[in-house]
Amino acid sequence: MANVIVINPFEVPKGKEKEALAIWEKFADYFCKQPGYVSTRLHRAVNPDARFHLVSISEWASAEQFGAALQNPQVKAIADATMEDLRFYPSLYEVIRT
Amino acid sequence: MANVIVINPFEVPKGKEKEALAIWEKFADYFCKQPGYVSTRLHRAVNPDARFHLVSISEWASAEQFGAALQNPQVKAIADATMEDLRFYPSLYEVIRT
Repeated sequence: MANVIVINPFEVPKGKEKEALAIWEKFADYFCKQPGYVSTRLHRAVNPDARFHLVSISEWASAEQFGAALQNPQVKAIADATMEDLRFYPSLYEVIRT
Repeated sequence: MANVIVINPFEVPKGKEKEALAIWEKFADYFCKQPGYVSTRLHRAVNPDARFHLVSISEWASAEQFGAALQNPQVKAIADATMEDLRFYPSLYEVIRT
């Protein structure tokens, strides 16, 4: 079965890149140890006015394994502890054109 | 110099995937012939309720070459001809964590 991709664009409030990166690191530390995790790349916008300052892109062996990793209460704890004004939109994707 | 990444999340109105794909194909046909273009992958959300139904990710040899490709009036013509309710947020990115 083809790998699935999790794409997560972050709206980072001006001047809060450092705090946002710290939150991303907490998520990354957790997810990279879960079954089915393959790899992650974190992207930072070249232009500081970009709508999504950070975009995280991860590869997982299956949607089921990513779903299972999400169920852990640790994920909710990290999410609950984020800055109030940090917005992110994680979704699962498949590649349909190359 | 490291390649740059163009990430472009699309908000696709419900039931308009076919039209959105046709627009993406027009952009892709143009960009893939420009100097500095390396590759593209188009991602479709597995969950139909995802905020961004399509996410296009392209690699370019340099920000300057992508910038030059954007200047062509052909790009504006394609953008002007898109559906009124299709929103997209293209930005240039660098990989900062792996």
